[in-house]
Amino acid sequence: MHLNLKSMLLSRIPILSWLPKYSTHEAIADVIAGITVGLTLIPQVIAYAALAGLSPQYGLYSSFAGSFVYMIFGTTPEVNIGPTALISLLTYTYTHGTDQKMTVLLCFLCGCVQFLFGICHLGFLVELVSVPVTIGFTSSTSLIIGCSQIKGLLGLKFESESLIDTVKGLIAHIHETNTGDAVLSLICCIILLSLRKLKDVKITPKDGKTLSTSEYRLQKCLWFISVARNAMIVVVCALVALILEAKNAIPFKLTGKIDPGLPPFEIPQFSIEYGNRTHTFTENVSHFGSGLFVLPLIALLQNIAIAKAFSKGRVVNGTQEMMTLGLCNIVGSFFGSYPVSGSFSRSAVSNASGIKTPMGGLYTGALVILALAFLTPYFYYIPKATLSSVIVCAIIFMIELSAIKPIWKTNKLDMIPLLGTFFACVLIGVELGILFGVALDLAIVLIFTARPKIVIEKIKDPVYVEYISVTPKGNLSYLAVNHVRNSVTKLNECLPIVLNGHYMEHGDFSTSQGLNALAGDLEKIGRIIIFYDFKPQLLKQLNAGSNFKHLAANTESGLNTILQDLNAEKRISATSPV
Amino acid sequence: MHLNLKSMLLSRIPILSWLPKYSTHEAIADVIAGITVGLTLIPQVIAYAALAGLSPQYGLYSSFAGSFVYMIFGTTPEVNIGPTALISLLTYTYTHGTDQKMTVLLCFLCGCVQFLFGICHLGFLVELVSVPVTIGFTSSTSLIIGCSQIKGLLGLKFESESLIDTVKGLIAHIHETNTGDAVLSLICCIILLSLRKLKDVKITPKDGKTLSTSEYRLQKCLWFISVARNAMIVVVCALVALILEAKNAIPFKLTGKIDPGLPPFEIPQFSIEYGNRTHTFTENVSHFGSGLFVLPLIALLQNIAIAKAFSKGRVVNGTQEMMTLGLCNIVGSFFGSYPVSGSFSRSAVSNASGIKTPMGGLYTGALVILALAFLTPYFYYIPKATLSSVIVCAIIFMIELSAIKPIWKTNKLDMIPLLGTFFACVLIGVELGILFGVALDLAIVLIFTARPKIVIEKIKDPVYVEYISVTPKGNLSYLAVNHVRNSVTKLNECLPIVLNGHYMEHGDFSTSQGLNALAGDLEKIGRIIIFYDFKPQLLKQLNAGSNFKHLAANTESGLNTILQDLNAEKRISATSPV
Repeated sequence: MHLNLKSMLLSRIPILSWLPKYSTHEAIADVIAGITVGLTLIPQVIAYAALAGLSPQYGLYSSFAGSFVYMIFGTTPEVNIGPTALISLLTYTYTHGTDQKMTVLLCFLCGCVQFLFGICHLGFLVELVSVPVTIGFTSSTSLIIGCSQIKGLLGLKFESESLIDTVKGLIAHIHETNTGDAVLSLICCIILLSLRKLKDVKITPKDGKTLSTSEYRLQKCLWFISVARNAMIVVVCALVALILEAKNAIPFKLTGKIDPGLPPFEIPQFSIEYGNRTHTFTENVSHFGSGLFVLPLIALLQNIAIAKAFSKGRVVNGTQEMMTLGLCNIVGSFFGSYPVSGSFSRSAVSNASGIKTPMGGLYTGALVILALAFLTPYFYYIPKATLSSVIVCAIIFMIELSAIKPIWKTNKLDMIPLLGTFFACVLIGVELGILFGVALDLAIVLIFTARPKIVIEKIKDPVYVEYISVTPKGNLSYLAVNHVRNSVTKLNECLPIVLNGHYMEHGDFSTSQGLNALAGDLEKIGRIIIFYDFKPQLLKQLNAGSNFKHLAANTESGLNTILQDLNAEKRISATSPV
Repeated sequence: MHLNLKSMLLSRIPILSWLPKYSTHEAIADVIAGITVGLTLIPQVIAYAALAGLSPQYGLYSSFAGSFVYMIFGTTPEVNIGPTALISLLTYTYTHGTDQKMTVLLCFLCGCVQFLFGICHLGFLVELVSVPVTIGFTSSTSLIIGCSQIKGLLGLKFESESLIDTVKGLIAHIHETNTGDAVLSLICCIILLSLRKLKDVKITPKDGKTLSTSEYRLQKCLWFISVARNAMIVVVCALVALILEAKNAIPFKLTGKIDPGLPPFEIPQFSIEYGNRTHTFTENVSHFGSGLFVLPLIALLQNIAIAKAFSKGRVVNGTQEMMTLGLCNIVGSFFGSYPVSGSFSRSAVSNASGIKTPMGGLYTGALVILALAFLTPYFYYIPKATLSSVIVCAIIFMIELSAIKPIWKTNKLDMIPLLGTFFACVLIGVELGILFGVALDLAIVLIFTARPKIVIEKIKDPVYVEYISVTPKGNLSYLAVNHVRNSVTKLNECLPIVLNGHYMEHGDFSTSQGLNALAGDLEKIGRIIIFYDFKPQLLKQLNAGSNFKHLAANTESGLNTILQDLNAEKRISATSPV
């Protein structure tokens, strides 16, 4: 009993199991990795906040609570919790045209839903989204996000919701392009993409064998520059803006004035005032609608996918991940956070930086708080075009064209959910698009369930009587039973039919009704059906719904006995107790 | 080629195949059956029209076109097409508060949808509705219809849509009960229920062996009185009203004035004026909404169920039934019909009356036209309470309490869709209720698909090496693959794992990704997995998504060779090419 409680505590609060053994060696690794992740995170989340329709500080508000909570409850050291491009876009979808407080409420409710999912062991919901649907979804959202950033790149200003809106707006406003913004974007993108390549540069050792210390340091340095590229470009651009401001000649748009300092700690508001009136909690919930299901689910999907990717063969505890992400969002919402999730790009940086324990989150979170405390006044100078460049250069690598080839090679049918999800997201919006994709995917599974392969063979044995063997290669649910019934009724030859239940594991009421109706159909035209190799439970169900006892055999010899009896007594077309 | 065209014609227009062989014997049987059905139909459809929110003549308008069309294109002589309680209720659900012309448009569109279903061979859609869902649905609609008629029985007057509305209304208005209506209802119900029993009365032959001619005639007579009970009670009550009117002392509500004569032949209107403005076709279609899918589907379901029930072992041609019902609705809409379908009660009468060919419809239809031509003025006198009694006494037998026992005995799990559909229909309305029921039922099928039984056995062979055999008893779709992956990863013993693909017929991209990930997981901890008895296609898919070639065997000896090799070379924990 005592042991159970302890092991439960250790599995629910993992920090209790690793902190007592925490070593100096691990601490150093975590400090380095935590700070590296922080440098990637800060410029990213400032940009993602804009994507969610919020001003930059909210990106930072959303970034530290998650790091701290995950440190205590998280299981995978590599995972970094915070704003992501996808969740930012979804947040925008469900809250645009309202108030920033709505994003906080959404964050709180998402957290509650995720925590509930965890408590109720609803982790299987994540499995509803297959790999092709995920690829279709991420690719289309990347396309939508990428396109939405083009206006930022060119310094245009217009309202747009869907991809089609954006494309129309771009065409209508392209002549208003601001040269300053466009040039800055071009420079930023070229630098970012080049620096991104830098980490793949392999230094060839002079002696041809191993790297010398200085060569090794150079290699590390190149890697660090590559990883910190977002932070560097933002700092450099802000400095340029600061210098140009003195001359009153800034040729591009700036982020503008934002609230300085740390976010206040406050309980999320349930009734929210915007558009000249107060919206009640019920109104707000119905405003979010399916978002309260879709957003937590997508966030969980992202998080669990990342945890699995970095699990190195360990089994990921889905329930724990869900409850932890739920807590991250709930706690975050008290600090003005909008919904967060695990970020793939930052988790990869974390991994590459050699993180050892979830303690890394402490340093990342601390860096964010320092930034909020001391750097917010300077956010004014960050050019909008730079932030758009940061997003675009991250997002274009999420359009997974490379994933299409293996899918095509493995199973061409899987292109249907992939393309279906992609186009649905682009055409009817990401929130309905993913539901459509999942429905499409489930429909395909259901089609296979409804139409199992049926093997029909005429078996001729010199010793025994001839018969037709019918073997459905799967369960006969209510969806499939009529298919079998029709296939059998269509058989024209007047031979006994042996229905092989080898592949059937269970049946429902409609199954036994359908099979009884089949036996009845055949009886009316004087034919015989033998139920062969059925599970006892299935046979019991079959007889429960019928007035007569079916001919049934479990073994080959049993089947042969029945067939021989039928033959010997010439009762085949007589009224035998079928 | 010529033969194909001919056989196609014969299967599409069945009258061509049976009319040339039509005998006098069959004709006499059909006349008797057709007229008997007509006598059941006329009072029923007058009552059902009220259920659909229409005045009585529309019930008759809806009854003759279908009979004629089904005569030409129908395959099952017993089926009688016309208004039914269920479809009337659904029509009310989708058109109440609008205009009668909307019911005609709904009829036309339903017909088109059904015809399209037929052309596109979408008959399988009917299979989406399982037996338990059907029972839950018919029982709840019967309850809803029955309750809605209580106000008619008691002579109350109030608006109500849902069952809860009705119950609330009844409680609020019960004190306004009209004694005349209530007494008349009570008398009608007692007579109807007694007469219904009459047809089950078996006359015992005097000589103890066979019925004499007069005894046989008496038996037939009792049966006929029982079948024609609705017609008789309506005529008698109308006569009573006619007599009482002369004395100006009618204590109950009458049907009131209705348009006399036959309906005009006119093209259904697409733009319809009501509520002070014209509603365009698009508006009307969006008003019907999911009704344009649900109503045709339910009607088809009823129709195919009836055709199957009376098919006597023949295979029912679903496509033909769908196209025919579609035509019945399309043609009907030109005569002011609201949606129609096959009626179970009238088809049963038809069967019991000894119908031989679909020609019976001619006489039923003719009787309806005669009634419209000469009897409409007298409809004025039919008491509303009598019509309500007719509906209630028919509908209470549709609450299928008796079906619960066999379902419980066969498969307790099937109570979930049954009760789910029942309560959903009662609480959120029949149109959403049935969709909910279908979704619930599909979810159960999906759960079985997502969680196939996995048999895990430790196999110890004195000659060969020990191994763990893992056999999933079903397909591993993307829903199931992670379940298998987790089950295998959890196995603690360090033995080779043999994954048996015997029950797997196909896989998708996620399947091969999941199985490759499983192989990867195991490799990381130095364990071996052998894919045994996989279909070649599945193995090909598996290798297409992987960098290494999997250990695979198709035969037992092949498997043993691999295991022996592993054992002999002691490579089990070495880096073998897994």
